[in-house]
Amino acid sequence: MSPTDLDRTMSIPSFAIGIAGGTGAGKTTVSRTVAETVGEAVTRIPLDNYYEDLSHLDYEERADVNYDHPNAFEWELLRDQLNSLLMGQPIEMPQYDFERHVRLDEFVHVEPTDVIVLEGILSLHDDVILEMLDLCVYVMTDADVRILRRIERDVVERDRDLEGVIDQYLGTVKPMHEQFVEPTKKDADVIIPEGANRMAVDLLTEKVQAELSGERVAPEDELGRDEDGELELPLSVADSSE
Amino acid sequence: MSPTDLDRTMSIPSFAIGIAGGTGAGKTTVSRTVAETVGEAVTRIPLDNYYEDLSHLDYEERADVNYDHPNAFEWELLRDQLNSLLMGQPIEMPQYDFERHVRLDEFVHVEPTDVIVLEGILSLHDDVILEMLDLCVYVMTDADVRILRRIERDVVERDRDLEGVIDQYLGTVKPMHEQFVEPTKKDADVIIPEGANRMAVDLLTEKVQAELSGERVAPEDELGRDEDGELELPLSVADSSE
Repeated sequence: MSPTDLDRTMSIPSFAIGIAGGTGAGKTTVSRTVAETVGEAVTRIPLDNYYEDLSHLDYEERADVNYDHPNAFEWELLRDQLNSLLMGQPIEMPQYDFERHVRLDEFVHVEPTDVIVLEGILSLHDDVILEMLDLCVYVMTDADVRILRRIERDVVERDRDLEGVIDQYLGTVKPMHEQFVEPTKKDADVIIPEGANRMAVDLLTEKVQAELSGERVAPEDELGRDEDGELELPLSVADSSE
Repeated sequence: MSPTDLDRTMSIPSFAIGIAGGTGAGKTTVSRTVAETVGEAVTRIPLDNYYEDLSHLDYEERADVNYDHPNAFEWELLRDQLNSLLMGQPIEMPQYDFERHVRLDEFVHVEPTDVIVLEGILSLHDDVILEMLDLCVYVMTDADVRILRRIERDVVERDRDLEGVIDQYLGTVKPMHEQFVEPTKKDADVIIPEGANRMAVDLLTEKVQAELSGERVAPEDELGRDEDGELELPLSVADSSE
């Protein structure tokens, strides 16, 4: 590692991970496990905290909002706050009341840490935020497993009406997933299949630790990359199977 | 790390990676990049070398064989040889002649190394081999990109007839991919989207280096795991989005 790399690593120690995936995919489990395992100060930023404050609408109108559409989130605020954390500045993170569909009056004071994990269905949706993320992860879990988890959470734990949960799932959750969430898989550096597995979490935590300790495997320029950071994959090196 | 972990790491230093994915997905590029980047002795085992020797059939019969079906491979030999390498013993790896559809008379002497990479469309197909692999990777690339790479390879480089390539693709490659290759995604620890990207290769190489140096992130027992090594993901911890 050159002295320049070391300087860069030390001056901007933060490593930002985005963890996206459908409802019930297991994003929170992955995020929590990485946070517990990485052994550094980790700040978890739930995207859900950045739902637009709709307190100017009455309850009926708020209940009708499509909360699975990207427009339901206040992206500008998230961009600003993520940027602040990455610049080493604390933020006042908003909180959201899911029962009343409004932003709470209290904010949570968050100090910048070495590792930041942004988790939520659309964590990889916004181009500006994608630029800020060092590692993009998509948790891919079968839709039937995901809806069962959602039913478990909403019906069993939150005592919501089953028919309402099904209607919401088929009405907005599923179509918005297919239109906006699932396509962000393309922007992931890695996809973790079936919720969470030990090896995948190991890969993430070891990557974080290597980045924080400045133990880069090799200079980035050593391999041909296009401007998106993708390895250039010439057509001619496709595999040699029959 | 406990002394017991260290002993285990030192007595069986080999780390075996399986890299699967459809034809033209970019498996070889990932495999080659990992091998070049990891900075340790890496042995690459192409699954294609383990095609059954069909020299007892005449050429017409050999040309009619479905080379995209799992039955086309000599799994027993691959299991034995992979096991030998992992036990620290050298092997005589077979070679395959794709023009004549027969195994070559020459074998390649392969000494065991710290890292073994098994690459091929069905690297994650066989249950016994899955047990031997420490890290299972599936390279996921769109089918249209994959067939274009195959055409490039077979028609442009190998001067094969375009119609023949298309017939083979639609006749066996595609259906066998959907029936046997694509389902092995479920057995992957991580899925690498779109061929190869720098971050994904970094994750793999840093994992390999951490394993070889014995720098385990945490004892495996620290997290709840079921017998498949999957993190136990209780339904109740599904994410808290709307």
